[in-house]
Amino acid sequence: MSDRIANAMLRGKVMSAEEAAQFIDNGDKVGMSGFTGAAYPKALPTAIANRAKEAQAKGDSYKIDVFTGASTAPDCDGVMAEAGAINYRMPYQSDPTMRNAINAGEIKYQDIHLSHSGQQVEYGFFGPNLDVAIVEVTRITEDGHLIPSSGVGNNVDFLDSAKKIIIEVNEWQSLELEGMADIYRIQHLPNRTPVPIINSGDRIGKTFIDIDLSKVVAIVETNTPDRNAPFKPVDETSQKIAGHFISFLEGEVAGGRLTYDNYIMQSGVGNVPNAVMAGLLDSKFEKIEAYTEVIQDGMVDLIDAGKMTVASATSFSLSPEYAEKMNQEAKRYRESIILRPQQVSNHPEVIRRVGLISSNGMIEADIYGNINSTHVAGSRIMNGIGGSGDFTRNARVSTFISPSDAKGGDISAIVPFASHIDHTEHDAMVIITEYGVADLRGLAPRDRVAKTIAVAHPDYRPLLEEYVERANKGRFLQTPHDLSTAFSFHERFLANGSMKQA
Amino acid sequence: MSDRIANAMLRGKVMSAEEAAQFIDNGDKVGMSGFTGAAYPKALPTAIANRAKEAQAKGDSYKIDVFTGASTAPDCDGVMAEAGAINYRMPYQSDPTMRNAINAGEIKYQDIHLSHSGQQVEYGFFGPNLDVAIVEVTRITEDGHLIPSSGVGNNVDFLDSAKKIIIEVNEWQSLELEGMADIYRIQHLPNRTPVPIINSGDRIGKTFIDIDLSKVVAIVETNTPDRNAPFKPVDETSQKIAGHFISFLEGEVAGGRLTYDNYIMQSGVGNVPNAVMAGLLDSKFEKIEAYTEVIQDGMVDLIDAGKMTVASATSFSLSPEYAEKMNQEAKRYRESIILRPQQVSNHPEVIRRVGLISSNGMIEADIYGNINSTHVAGSRIMNGIGGSGDFTRNARVSTFISPSDAKGGDISAIVPFASHIDHTEHDAMVIITEYGVADLRGLAPRDRVAKTIAVAHPDYRPLLEEYVERANKGRFLQTPHDLSTAFSFHERFLANGSMKQA
Repeated sequence: MSDRIANAMLRGKVMSAEEAAQFIDNGDKVGMSGFTGAAYPKALPTAIANRAKEAQAKGDSYKIDVFTGASTAPDCDGVMAEAGAINYRMPYQSDPTMRNAINAGEIKYQDIHLSHSGQQVEYGFFGPNLDVAIVEVTRITEDGHLIPSSGVGNNVDFLDSAKKIIIEVNEWQSLELEGMADIYRIQHLPNRTPVPIINSGDRIGKTFIDIDLSKVVAIVETNTPDRNAPFKPVDETSQKIAGHFISFLEGEVAGGRLTYDNYIMQSGVGNVPNAVMAGLLDSKFEKIEAYTEVIQDGMVDLIDAGKMTVASATSFSLSPEYAEKMNQEAKRYRESIILRPQQVSNHPEVIRRVGLISSNGMIEADIYGNINSTHVAGSRIMNGIGGSGDFTRNARVSTFISPSDAKGGDISAIVPFASHIDHTEHDAMVIITEYGVADLRGLAPRDRVAKTIAVAHPDYRPLLEEYVERANKGRFLQTPHDLSTAFSFHERFLANGSMKQA
Repeated sequence: MSDRIANAMLRGKVMSAEEAAQFIDNGDKVGMSGFTGAAYPKALPTAIANRAKEAQAKGDSYKIDVFTGASTAPDCDGVMAEAGAINYRMPYQSDPTMRNAINAGEIKYQDIHLSHSGQQVEYGFFGPNLDVAIVEVTRITEDGHLIPSSGVGNNVDFLDSAKKIIIEVNEWQSLELEGMADIYRIQHLPNRTPVPIINSGDRIGKTFIDIDLSKVVAIVETNTPDRNAPFKPVDETSQKIAGHFISFLEGEVAGGRLTYDNYIMQSGVGNVPNAVMAGLLDSKFEKIEAYTEVIQDGMVDLIDAGKMTVASATSFSLSPEYAEKMNQEAKRYRESIILRPQQVSNHPEVIRRVGLISSNGMIEADIYGNINSTHVAGSRIMNGIGGSGDFTRNARVSTFISPSDAKGGDISAIVPFASHIDHTEHDAMVIITEYGVADLRGLAPRDRVAKTIAVAHPDYRPLLEEYVERANKGRFLQTPHDLSTAFSFHERFLANGSMKQA
């Protein structure tokens, strides 16, 4: 047995994943660790999937409701979705098998702001308690305290709420991650006080999670890596977008709204953000801080280059190479990296206070600056809103960065009317594509149109201009629309596979 | 000269509104006091309108950009809009003349979250400074401190930002309002600290606004009432909605999510909220607190009845009768009423901390719970989002309350796809009409549909069900839509004047 389980009572609870899965009943509400492919349970999901398959073979029902921090991995969301083991899922996912099951109507998926998800469990929206919490840790102390592995997510909320606790102790995770987590419990209503973070790097809590040990029903040992997807090399389009983003920051400095040593970054995940971070390496910006959701390769590079002083997040989202480096050098990186509960990393209060500039991807923006982050053609969910709403609504400046088209040109990122709206015209301030920066701040809706069309792909600009001309013939000119053709781009895509004119 | 101007230097600046208006140049950005018909300048707007008319008569241009707290009144927004004196307007309005000018494309209107509006001025989105601030007060102290009148709004931000200050001293406002305001300056970036409000009733600031006296160019004396629109008597529909709302609160208590002495209210303005407050008078709820935007008649009644212990807001929105009472008895009411800057009354940080239940009106909700608060048929702005986004996003529970139809049945409040989205499916939790409560918490989009249709007007339920049937034939079932008929209700309304089938 691993010496990572220092508590004697809990050593007595070690068992196989198959045995532990017997504590999870049909219909249970199960809160799991896991955020963007890090720190999810590695063994229980497969054991749960197997239980579901066995039940189905006997003609029985076995489905659970799964709550996590955010997305997990094929060996978590994927295996459970494939086995038909999931009834309801929140607050975020990105697994292809699960996505297909959701869009086929087989899994009920609720897409919830990440900062709201743990709170809604506390508030009792899903009943007074979760049934089970399954949480991966790097080690259990003699006192039974849990040392988080590569992410914190909603673990505190789930462990506090659940009637039963199952802990996975993953030897693959570095012991030197201890000290990186900053565990602060948001008080429950009606006794809340301010979250005392003034600067991104402030540590306000403990390095461990204390739990009610009497709720622990099983400990499972694992030795399995996180899912760490390699990033694609930065392509030309991403580089152009990154260039425009950094020019935008330079413009903020020139306009007296930012200084070179006062840029606080929030960044979504992906190739474009990675290109932005690569660009920042060679920029004039210094003492960059990140107050964000996940630690990405580019932030590690900025820390190594002395450009970034601190990165606060709730989890890692690293390539295999960088995950290896993090595991080797966690002791050094924990000086400048903090992992917080996602209620804290994504808290509106702290986001507004520190004054960060948010930067998130999108599926489409409409001509007035409403943003669709989640659905293709209004109905097909991709991943979810994640933390983009938490950051966008409360940022000093909110930006959305995206290539101007997708699917080889068949989808335009700028459309007449967004087919699903996750961020409204009241929240989105700046839209950046490879064609430039649409700065919508201070503009009435009609004055935004020329800006958004200017960053659309040139192939789509005439179609957008035709729409605007039609819309402006209407009777009401605050936000002119021609509702009968507002979704014409999407209708063409659904009919012909392309938003372009047939 | 009024003894309400105790500062000797400022007494030397007293002049007529016409003289003061000479300080306001064509193209100026002008920040005015005023929030929901209270505390707006009473004399300068007419003087500005007259300047515009004179300029037009000479063939000259004279238009200004107008920033306020929220809506004002016919003798402020109305006269300026009528004179063509306004180029750009933010963050909220409700004046019929101004609304028509906006929808005719004559005024540029940007609809901004009320908690963001002052902050965006600070951030420099409109340039480094406003040109002029025009602020109504009840009195100026010997030290030159301003005692707010019947509202605070964005006054602090505007007075801090503007290069020139014009003060209107309104004798109509009670001197005993002094002590009601709690003026706390949100620190400017990068030096922000927590807003230290723990309970709705906490006073954290001063009773006056201190300003840079050297910026004051004019003092104008007035003696004019606020615009205080009488409320209509509570009708049957409002009463039914109020009954459902209070049943919903009772259900929260039964579900262990609320106690009878722990209801913190936020409430939009209008007949339905007034009916709710009347209903609360006879309910089991005690020690009610309001952490909201405006003080309404119903709150005064709740205070008088000993049911409400404290009401925190930024302004009054009272009927003439209640405004009179407030002026008479301000000394008594200031024990339980606090008026804060709107950055504080509407601050996401405080809203989330106190755990209030928000309650706002709407124009329409769609079957999945996206809310349109602002636009008729996607293009015609009514008023604006106001603070509904600040409260909805950060509430413990967010509710929207509305009659199920409007315009004698020609408009349905439940539609297939909201024609403008101000609050997304991630934010709206509960929708209440005279037909009941649609509690969408914890539900995937498809499971919300039966709930929203159940609170639609019966005349529209078959049409909504037909839409859902069509939508469910699509390929993707997370959020099924038939985009070609998603706006069919609105298209019928625009074509035939009714959302009903021809």
